Amino acid sequence: MRQKLLSAGANELSYEIREIVKKAKILQKEGVEIFWENIGDPIQKNAQIPLWIKEIVNDLTQDDKTYGYCDSKGELTTRVFLADRTNRLGGVQITPEDILFFNGLGDAIATLYHYLTPTTRVIGPSPAYSTHSSAEAAHANHHPLTYRLDPENHWYPDMEDLRNKVKYNPNIVAILIINPDNPTGMVYPRDILEEIVDLAREFDLFLISDEIYNQVTYNGVRAYGLSEIIGDVPGIAMKGISKELPWPGSRCGWIECYNREADLEFNRLCKVLDDAKMIEVCSTTLPQMAIPKILGDPRYDEYRAELNEKIGWRSRFISETLQEIPELTFNPTYGAFYNTIVFKEGTLKSDQSLPVKDNEVRELVESWVEGAPLDFRFVYYLLGATGICVVPLSSFASDLRGFRITLLEEDEELLKQTFTTLRDSIRSYLDS
Amino acid sequence: MRQKLLSAGANELSYEIREIVKKAKILQKEGVEIFWENIGDPIQKNAQIPLWIKEIVNDLTQDDKTYGYCDSKGELTTRVFLADRTNRLGGVQITPEDILFFNGLGDAIATLYHYLTPTTRVIGPSPAYSTHSSAEAAHANHHPLTYRLDPENHWYPDMEDLRNKVKYNPNIVAILIINPDNPTGMVYPRDILEEIVDLAREFDLFLISDEIYNQVTYNGVRAYGLSEIIGDVPGIAMKGISKELPWPGSRCGWIECYNREADLEFNRLCKVLDDAKMIEVCSTTLPQMAIPKILGDPRYDEYRAELNEKIGWRSRFISETLQEIPELTFNPTYGAFYNTIVFKEGTLKSDQSLPVKDNEVRELVESWVEGAPLDFRFVYYLLGATGICVVPLSSFASDLRGFRITLLEEDEELLKQTFTTLRDSIRSYLDS
Amino acid sequence: MRQKLLSAGANELSYEIREIVKKAKILQKEGVEIFWENIGDPIQKNAQIPLWIKEIVNDLTQDDKTYGYCDSKGELTTRVFLADRTNRLGGVQITPEDILFFNGLGDAIATLYHYLTPTTRVIGPSPAYSTHSSAEAAHANHHPLTYRLDPENHWYPDMEDLRNKVKYNPNIVAILIINPDNPTGMVYPRDILEEIVDLAREFDLFLISDEIYNQVTYNGVRAYGLSEIIGDVPGIAMKGISKELPWPGSRCGWIECYNREADLEFNRLCKVLDDAKMIEVCSTTLPQMAIPKILGDPRYDEYRAELNEKIGWRSRFISETLQEIPELTFNPTYGAFYNTIVFKEGTLKSDQSLPVKDNEVRELVESWVEGAPLDFRFVYYLLGATGICVVPLSSFASDLRGFRITLLEEDEELLKQTFTTLRDSIRSYLDS
Amino acid sequence: MRQKLLSAGANELSYEIREIVKKAKILQKEGVEIFWENIGDPIQKNAQIPLWIKEIVNDLTQDDKTYGYCDSKGELTTRVFLADRTNRLGGVQITPEDILFFNGLGDAIATLYHYLTPTTRVIGPSPAYSTHSSAEAAHANHHPLTYRLDPENHWYPDMEDLRNKVKYNPNIVAILIINPDNPTGMVYPRDILEEIVDLAREFDLFLISDEIYNQVTYNGVRAYGLSEIIGDVPGIAMKGISKELPWPGSRCGWIECYNREADLEFNRLCKVLDDAKMIEVCSTTLPQMAIPKILGDPRYDEYRAELNEKIGWRSRFISETLQEIPELTFNPTYGAFYNTIVFKEGTLKSDQSLPVKDNEVRELVESWVEGAPLDFRFVYYLLGATGICVVPLSSFASDLRGFRITLLEEDEELLKQTFTTLRDSIRSYLDS
Repeated sequence: MRQKLLSAGANELSYEIREIVKKAKILQKEGVEIFWENIGDPIQKNAQIPLWIKEIVNDLTQDDKTYGYCDSKGELTTRVFLADRTNRLGGVQITPEDILFFNGLGDAIATLYHYLTPTTRVIGPSPAYSTHSSAEAAHANHHPLTYRLDPENHWYPDMEDLRNKVKYNPNIVAILIINPDNPTGMVYPRDILEEIVDLAREFDLFLISDEIYNQVTYNGVRAYGLSEIIGDVPGIAMKGISKELPWPGSRCGWIECYNREADLEFNRLCKVLDDAKMIEVCSTTLPQMAIPKILGDPRYDEYRAELNEKIGWRSRFISETLQEIPELTFNPTYGAFYNTIVFKEGTLKSDQSLPVKDNEVRELVESWVEGAPLDFRFVYYLLGATGICVVPLSSFASDLRGFRITLLEEDEELLKQTFTTLRDSIRSYLDS
Repeated sequence: MRQKLLSAGANELSYEIREIVKKAKILQKEGVEIFWENIGDPIQKNAQIPLWIKEIVNDLTQDDKTYGYCDSKGELTTRVFLADRTNRLGGVQITPEDILFFNGLGDAIATLYHYLTPTTRVIGPSPAYSTHSSAEAAHANHHPLTYRLDPENHWYPDMEDLRNKVKYNPNIVAILIINPDNPTGMVYPRDILEEIVDLAREFDLFLISDEIYNQVTYNGVRAYGLSEIIGDVPGIAMKGISKELPWPGSRCGWIECYNREADLEFNRLCKVLDDAKMIEVCSTTLPQMAIPKILGDPRYDEYRAELNEKIGWRSRFISETLQEIPELTFNPTYGAFYNTIVFKEGTLKSDQSLPVKDNEVRELVESWVEGAPLDFRFVYYLLGATGICVVPLSSFASDLRGFRITLLEEDEELLKQTFTTLRDSIRSYLDS
Repeated sequence: MRQKLLSAGANELSYEIREIVKKAKILQKEGVEIFWENIGDPIQKNAQIPLWIKEIVNDLTQDDKTYGYCDSKGELTTRVFLADRTNRLGGVQITPEDILFFNGLGDAIATLYHYLTPTTRVIGPSPAYSTHSSAEAAHANHHPLTYRLDPENHWYPDMEDLRNKVKYNPNIVAILIINPDNPTGMVYPRDILEEIVDLAREFDLFLISDEIYNQVTYNGVRAYGLSEIIGDVPGIAMKGISKELPWPGSRCGWIECYNREADLEFNRLCKVLDDAKMIEVCSTTLPQMAIPKILGDPRYDEYRAELNEKIGWRSRFISETLQEIPELTFNPTYGAFYNTIVFKEGTLKSDQSLPVKDNEVRELVESWVEGAPLDFRFVYYLLGATGICVVPLSSFASDLRGFRITLLEEDEELLKQTFTTLRDSIRSYLDS
Repeated sequence: MRQKLLSAGANELSYEIREIVKKAKILQKEGVEIFWENIGDPIQKNAQIPLWIKEIVNDLTQDDKTYGYCDSKGELTTRVFLADRTNRLGGVQITPEDILFFNGLGDAIATLYHYLTPTTRVIGPSPAYSTHSSAEAAHANHHPLTYRLDPENHWYPDMEDLRNKVKYNPNIVAILIINPDNPTGMVYPRDILEEIVDLAREFDLFLISDEIYNQVTYNGVRAYGLSEIIGDVPGIAMKGISKELPWPGSRCGWIECYNREADLEFNRLCKVLDDAKMIEVCSTTLPQMAIPKILGDPRYDEYRAELNEKIGWRSRFISETLQEIPELTFNPTYGAFYNTIVFKEGTLKSDQSLPVKDNEVRELVESWVEGAPLDFRFVYYLLGATGICVVPLSSFASDLRGFRITLLEEDEELLKQTFTTLRDSIRSYLDS
C-alpha cells in the first residue's frame, strides 16, 4: 500500500469475550457437548417471542411503508411515544427532537466516541463491557479508563476511586454508567446515582447511561433511569429493545439527550450525532414502527414481568448453588442477565486442573492454559471437562480473576444440572 | 463542559441535500402541493413490494431465530449465498469470510473512513454523494477530495484529472467509484474501470466500489462489478438491498473484500473492520436471512427486470422532454434512479425568476434566493411556482450549476405532467 | 490561505509574564520611572561579568574554531568535562554520549515536549514557569497539568496532590521539578525529591529536573541534582549557564539523560532528541567551548559563592521588610532569583487602590484594572503609583493571588528603597 | 514506561548525510587519511575569519550587555539594520516587527513546521536538504513531499512537476525554495522565481525562501531575494550569517515575514512563531549585536567578493576536471558551496569497485557495499581507496544516483590533487 492505512486507535479494538467461543467450537468439533453459558442472547437460549408480538410484526411487514426509509432521527410517532414514556417518569422532560435512533447501541456508542476529540476521555466501570471500553479506547488511542466496581460491596462503584480519577484527570469529560450492569448484574442504588450526578455537576462533565437492561430487573429491585435523577446536568441515556423485548437481531436502539440547552459544547455534540446519522440516511425502520405497538400493548408489561420473574428464579437458584463456596466472592444479582463471580485472591493456582477424559481434548486444553491468566486456566479446564462455556473475568478489562455466567437458560432442569456441575467442578478444581 | 468535546473532523459532516426538504416542508404548510422529485426511496414514491416477497418476510418473522443475533460478520448461509453469486461472475473469487455485513452502506462507509489514519485520503467522484464525501472529509479534517465527472462526456470520469491527482498527491490511498453513479445515472464503461484498476495497481492503491445500484440498469446497459475487473488489486465492493429489492428501511448492506492477501496493510484494514463490527455484536438479522430466499427465488430476476424496464421508460421520457433545451447539458441515464442536469455556463443569471402567485410563498422564495448560488435560486423558484422539489447540483460538492431529479415516480401520468411542467418552467425561467 | 494552517496546540502558547512589560513601557513613555523587579536577567540588573571571564571569552574569539560548527551533540571536550562533573557527585554515572547541547533550555524544552505523543502528559509545579507549561500545553492541545506548591508549607510540593494526580491520570508519563524553583525560590528538600523518585518508579514514569538555578542557592541551603537521587529511574536533567555564570544571552544549555538503558521507550526518546538536534546541525559553539575554561577555573567557585552571598543578603533583607505584613503569606527563599508572595484569601478587594498623581497615568491604570484579576489590579496600581514593576502571580497558571519579585538589584540602596516602598504600598493598598 | 512516548512523526527524523561521517571515522582509525569533501563548514575547511571581524567580536565581548538577554524577537537595532537592508532592494517593504531571530535556521525550520497542522504540507526541492525535509516530514507523519530539480536542465525546477503537485494536492499550503540551492549549487533564475510566485498566488499558498547562501554566488550570477519578487503574496525569507560571514557556530539566523497583513491565517502563523520564541525568552545575543557592525562595515562587501571569487575559481576548476566524463551529468555551479554530480542511468553497476590496498580497509568497504544503493557503493569504494569523503546523492531524498562534493578547500594544491584523484577514480570505477 502506498501509505500506512490505519489510525493509531484501530489497535485498541478488541472483543476478547468472543475468544472463548472459538475455543468452544474447537472442542465441539472434537465431540464435546457445549453448554453456552457465555451468550447474552435470550433467543439463542430458547426464549420464545410471544405470538401476539409476532402478529404485530407480521401486520407491519404487510405494509409497504415498513420497507422504506424513515426520518433520519427515527420514526416520528415512535419518538413521540418514547418521549412521552420518559416524561411520565417525572424527571427531566424531553421532546421527540431529543431522541435519535441508531442501529443498536453498538452503533450509538461507536458514533459518540468517534466524534469526541482524542484528548478527551470517558470513564466507565470495570469490569468493563467491551463495546464501550474498546470504542472509547480506540477514540483515545489508549487503554480504557475505568472506575472500580467493588465485589466486596455488592459490585457498587468505588466512589472514592471514581471521584479521585475525575478530580485528578482533567481529560475526563464524561462518566459512563451501565445500569443494570453487564457483566455484574448489579443495579445502581438511587443514592449512588445521585452522588455520580453531583460529581458530574461539580466537575462540569456530562453523563452517559447505558440503559439497555433498564426493564430487566427482579427480586424486588428496579433500575432508575438517568432522566429521573439527572436534574440539570447534561446527559445521554442509551436505550433499546435488544434485551428487554428481547429482539437483539433488530439492531434497534436510541439515545435520549437530556438538558441539551444547559451546555453549548454538549449541545453541539448532540447536533453532530444528528448530522452523523443523517449522512447514513436513517436507522432500520421495521422495529422502530413496532415499538409503540408492542411496548404500548396492554399485554407487554405482564409479559416482561413474567420474564423477569423467571430470571429472578434463576438468579436465586444460582445464588443458592454457588454462594457458599468460601473461595468465591459471590454477589446475588438484581438486573440484566449475568453474574460475575470472583475467585478470592490466592485461591487460583497455576497447577490446578480438572480431569479431562478424552486425550485429544485434554491435550488441547493443556496447550491453551500454558501461560494463560489463572481465570482463563480455570475456564479452559471447565470447558474441556464439562462443556460448560463461561467467560473469563480478565476479558473485561479487570485485574480480578473470575468468570461471567448468564441467567438465560430456559430449561429449568438443564439449568439446575449445569450449575450443580459448575459448583462441583469449582470445588474439584480448587482442591486439585 | 470541562473541555472542548468535538474532534476537528466533526465540522465536516454535512448533508446539504436535505436542506431542500426543509424548504419544501415550509411551503407545504403554506398550502403548496409538493412533488418530491428529490427522494431516492422507491417506497416513498409508491413502489410496491410484491406479495411473494412479503410472504417470505412473513414466514421469517414467525421464526424466533430472526429475532436473535446472527454471526458478527453476518448470517453464514447468506454469506455463502453471496460469495457464490460473486464467484459466478468469473472474476476474483471470494469465500464467506471475505464478506462483512453492516447496517446499510452508511454504516460501512462511516466505519471504513473512521479507521483510516487522518493523513490518508480517498478520492471520489464529483458531483459527490454526501454519505461518502462527508465521511471521508470528517476523517481527514478537510474538504472532500474529488475527481471530475465530465458532463460533456456522458459524465464519464475525467481520467486525466484522476490520474494527475493520484500521481501528484501521495496521501491518496484509494479511489472510490459509485457504479452506477448517484447523482448522475452514469454507468462506468468497462474500459474506464480497467483504466482505474491499472491506476490503482501503478500507484499501489486499493479500490472502493459502491455497487448499491449494481442491479439497477436499463436501456441496454449493465454495470460491471468490481470483482469482474479488479484482477490482483486489493479492493472493497459495497453492496446492499436498499435500492435493488428495494428495501431501504432494512439498513442491510455488506462489503466484499477482494485480494485481501495481496497487501499486508490492506488485510489489516479488513481485519479492523471485522473487529469494529464485532464490538457492535452484529448487523440486523431479519433482512440478512431474507436475502438468499428472495434473491435466490426464480421470480426475482424477472421482477427486477420489470422494475428496470419501468425506470428505463421514465429515463427515455425525461430525455425526450428535456434534452432539447439548448441551455442544458443533458445526458441520458443508464443506471440508478437519478439524473443530474447542468445549466450551461452563463445561462443562469441573478435576476431570473418564475411567477409565484401566492404572496406569502413568493416572499419566502424571494428571501431564500438572496445571496444563494444560482442553481439554488432556480430550484427555489421552481419549488415556489410549481411545487416540484429537486436538489441543487451545488449541494453535491460540485462547481457546476444544475439540479438532480429522480426517476422513481410510479404514476405515469403524474410523471409526464411533472416533467412537462419542469421543461416549461426551465424555459420560462431562462427567458425571464 | 488554501487551508487552515495552525495546529490545535498553537493556541496554548502564552507567556503572560511579558504582558506586564508592555504596560510598564507605556507608563515609561508617560514619564514614569520604572524599577524593573520583573526581570530574571542579572545582566540587565547590572551584574558585571568578571574580567577573567571576559578574557577567556576574548581568547576564544581569536580562535577560528569557535566560529565553526561543533559536534551535533555538543563540543566533545565540554561534554567530557560536564559528565565528569556530574559523576563526581557520586550518583548515577554518565558518559559524554548522555549529554546533548541545546540553544538554551527553552530549545530543549520545546523539543522534548514536541516529540511526545499528544495524549501523554508531563505534570509540573504550580505556580508554573511558562516556558515549561506553555510548551507542554501546546504539545497536548490542553491547559497545563500541574501539582500544587503549597505556600503554607515553604512552597514544598503538596505530595498528596501530586500522588493522586499521577495515580489517577494514566496519561501522565513524567514529573517535572524545577529545582531551585522559579517563581517561588523554594529548594526541594532531599526527602521530598526521594519521594518523587519513588513515585516515578512506582508508576513507571520518567523525571525531568530543570536545574538551571542549581548553583544559585544561599543562606545555608544547597540544591540536589537529579543525578544524586534518581537511583535506577530514567530521567533528564536540564542544565545551563544562563543563570549561574550568568550568561543568559549565550542560549547555551544541555540535557543529561540518566538511566537511558533502563527503559526502551525512554531510550528511544533520548535518541529522537539527538536526531532532532542533528537535523539542526548543532548548538552554538562559543559558549560551549568556554564552559570548561570558566567552570574549571579555580576562581569560579569563589566567584559564584560571592554572588550567592549577595543574593542571600537581599533575600534576608526582603524577608525582614515584607514578612511581617499579616495579610501576606511570605516564605523566605533559598535558591534562584525570585520570591513569590501571596495575598491571603480575602485580603484583596475590587475597590482597593493606590494614589496616582499624574492624571494620564491614573486614567491608564484605571482602564487596565477594569475586570482584571485582583492581583493584576494591585500590580497595576503599584506600577502607576511607584514605578515598581512586579509580575502578577495569576500569570503563572496559579489560582493564588500575589506577585513575583526578583532578588537581582545590585545597588543596595536602591534595593532597600524599592522594597521599603513596596512594603508601604502594600499596606497602603490593603488599607485603602 | 507507563505509555508509548513518541509521536508518529518522530520516526521521520533522519539526517542520512551524517552517516558517511561515521564510516569515514572508522577508516580514519584504520589509518586512512580522510579528505573531508562532505562538510559544509568553511571554518573546518580552513577559512580564516579576518582580523577586523574578530576585533569587532572582541570589542563586543567586553560589553556586559552582550552576555544578557536581548529582545525576544531579536536585538532591535539589528532588526532595524536588517529591515533597512531588505527595503533597499526595492521590493516588498518591512519593519523591524516583521523580523524574528532564531538560533540558526534549523531552529526556525523546526519551529515553523511544528506549528503547522499535520494535514498541511510544504513542498520543497529534491534533491532535498535534510533539515527541511526531515522537519516537514516529522510534522506531517509522512515522507517528504518534493518537486524535482532537473539535472538535464541546470538543476532548475521541473515547473510542470511542481505545478501539477500543487494543483492536484490541496494539502499543499506552501512552496519552499532554497536559493542558492544546497546540494546542487543552482541559483534560481528570476523568471522561474516569478513563475513560482504566480503559482503561489493562483493557489493561495505562501512561500518559504531559504536564503542562507544568498550572498554566496559567483561567476557572474546573483541570487534574487524573495522580497524582490514576491509582490503581494505572503511569504517567509530565512536568512542567517552561518554561511556568508561565515559564522556557522553562531547559530544565528532570522526570518523575515512578507505581506503578513495580506492573509489572516498567514498572519496568525507569524504571530505564533513570535509566541513560540517568546516562551524561549530570546535567541543568542552576541552574534545579533555583531551583525550591523560587521555587515555594515565598508570592508565587508569587498571581503565577501573575495571569498566568492575563490569559490568561483574552485567551481571552474572542478567543472574543467569532471565535466568531460561522459557517464556523468555535470552542471557548473553558481551559488552556495556544493555541487551534486549524477551518474547517468545504467552507468553504475553492482560489480564495480576500486582497488583498496589495505586488507582490513578493503574488508570493511566490502561489508558496507553489500546491498547498498549503487551510489553508496561508489562512495564507499572511493573512501576506502582514496580517503576522499563525499555524500551519496540518494541521501537527499532523491531517486538519482550520484554524490555531493563541496567547494570549500582553501588549499589550492590540495584541491587540485583531490579532484584530479576523484576524476581518475570515477573513470577507474566505471571501467572496472
